[in-house]
Amino acid sequence: MKIGILGYGNLGRGVEAAIKKNSDAELVAVYTRRDPSTLTIRTEGVPVKSTAALDTGKEDIDVLIICGGSATDLPVMTPKYAAMYNVIDSFDTHARVPEHFANVDKASKEAGKIGIISCGWDPGMFSLNRVYASAVLPDGQAYTFWGKGVSQGHSDAVRRIEGVRDCRQYTIPVPAALERVRNGENPALTTREKHTRECFVVAEEGADLARIEQEIKTMPNYFSDYDTTVHFIDEAEMKRDHSGLPHGGSVIYSGTSSEGQQHVIEYSLKLDSNPEFTGSVLVAFARAAVRLNSEGVSGAKTVFDIAPAYLSALSGEELRAHLL
Amino acid sequence: MKIGILGYGNLGRGVEAAIKKNSDAELVAVYTRRDPSTLTIRTEGVPVKSTAALDTGKEDIDVLIICGGSATDLPVMTPKYAAMYNVIDSFDTHARVPEHFANVDKASKEAGKIGIISCGWDPGMFSLNRVYASAVLPDGQAYTFWGKGVSQGHSDAVRRIEGVRDCRQYTIPVPAALERVRNGENPALTTREKHTRECFVVAEEGADLARIEQEIKTMPNYFSDYDTTVHFIDEAEMKRDHSGLPHGGSVIYSGTSSEGQQHVIEYSLKLDSNPEFTGSVLVAFARAAVRLNSEGVSGAKTVFDIAPAYLSALSGEELRAHLL
Repeated sequence: MKIGILGYGNLGRGVEAAIKKNSDAELVAVYTRRDPSTLTIRTEGVPVKSTAALDTGKEDIDVLIICGGSATDLPVMTPKYAAMYNVIDSFDTHARVPEHFANVDKASKEAGKIGIISCGWDPGMFSLNRVYASAVLPDGQAYTFWGKGVSQGHSDAVRRIEGVRDCRQYTIPVPAALERVRNGENPALTTREKHTRECFVVAEEGADLARIEQEIKTMPNYFSDYDTTVHFIDEAEMKRDHSGLPHGGSVIYSGTSSEGQQHVIEYSLKLDSNPEFTGSVLVAFARAAVRLNSEGVSGAKTVFDIAPAYLSALSGEELRAHLL
Repeated sequence: MKIGILGYGNLGRGVEAAIKKNSDAELVAVYTRRDPSTLTIRTEGVPVKSTAALDTGKEDIDVLIICGGSATDLPVMTPKYAAMYNVIDSFDTHARVPEHFANVDKASKEAGKIGIISCGWDPGMFSLNRVYASAVLPDGQAYTFWGKGVSQGHSDAVRRIEGVRDCRQYTIPVPAALERVRNGENPALTTREKHTRECFVVAEEGADLARIEQEIKTMPNYFSDYDTTVHFIDEAEMKRDHSGLPHGGSVIYSGTSSEGQQHVIEYSLKLDSNPEFTGSVLVAFARAAVRLNSEGVSGAKTVFDIAPAYLSALSGEELRAHLL
């Protein structure tokens, strides 16, 4: 399958890495809104093009993986390109999923293309596990824990505080909460009881550290509902200890099948690189998009709508023989 | 959906329990090869019928859940009833899956029905996790661990030894092996290094315990490749401590997305009741069978061929709003 990548930030590079691990996938172009001549990509021999080339609707790609932000990029880009190509994105603004789904559905159906939205690990693999578990055990409860890992959104929020040069924010599940959920206690947990947050901050010289710490800890939505620890470090330490983008977490589902018969299902991820794993999920579902579309299927889809066999490069016979 | 259960052993009763947890599912009959008058089931007001009633092909059921053994029952029953009804089974004889799939496919396609085979947790939920993980990270390796839990096949094998009145056999993963796999070491592990076996045996009075222990430990296929511990206990202790059928295990997949970027995916189950959880999986996939068939789909399917949304009683809109 011929893949185009739109956007070459962390996620775009993650997709690029994932493509190299799939022998049936070929990166044919990276599209950028920047001046293409300013961008050097890791894969040799693959052109960097302007999005203007995409806009013609005539690029020779089987699927376009759109690596933009959920706030402003994807709500515009995904429906736009769904009208021309099979597309897939990792849209993660929960409240706006119905609207985004409807927009992509309309565009892709009219074009006879597939548009997969909200694909990655959460939303994505974690969502799948919430659906499988709750379908198998309807009388139960799902808990999602994130981390330990770097939250890029929270790191960015801290970077916007005056006097902050750099920040890496780790989201960390509370061990006692994890323990209670794994024991099947089905506890009611507040936001504060589920996760803590830890910030490693490089401050500008002479900045008021107490004020920065206070601004972080009281920031609404991002930090005020959590117990947050702030460490001020220097740039060398940041570079040495915090240059990766690890992440992970667990979906834990506890349910009963009859009086006193309880079952705990846990799906967990430990990821060295959040963008490379997300990119890997996108490439597997990109394969599904191409295959489904070649069977005549069109419209918006999520991970819930796609049979697992479509993700694998193996045939049905091979899957049944080796993985069933 | 109107469900019939064929066979009323541990698994049939597990399916019966699961149906009670699904408000859109109704148990309409239990079918048995025994004299129906000798069988009392837990659900009031539901008839017990002879399989002769099923054989007419005229029973008013949307799907038949076939709860027979993989060795001799299912290879005959599933194709037979796939020619008349939507059916689902938990066939688990790995080597014979291609043949069973082909037989069910032929019968169900000719009848315009769906036949889902090999559904439960392994094969079933574990298989799904092997496929998802290997599709997302093709450069990686899957490990499956079972237990701690009761293996009914191994318990039965010990019961066939002369002088044994009862046995409960637990399969137990070796902690050091689990640890190495979770650490992403991708070790090469022998059968003996992955699991140990523990047998609780009630012997006949005066039986030669040393001989029984020796026969267990050297039994080919079942025990000879494992480190096995044998405990002789009395019937009271068996009843007090070993009357349940707990099970579980983990699929752990470790893969890389690029040099030095490793990811570990783990799916684990802790089940109070193996048959009730298996029954719960069967009911969720039975829902999928009915829905797919109502859309005109026919033929043999496995868990790989079914989009997760088909398993859930929730609509696509509800799934996207609450579980994505």
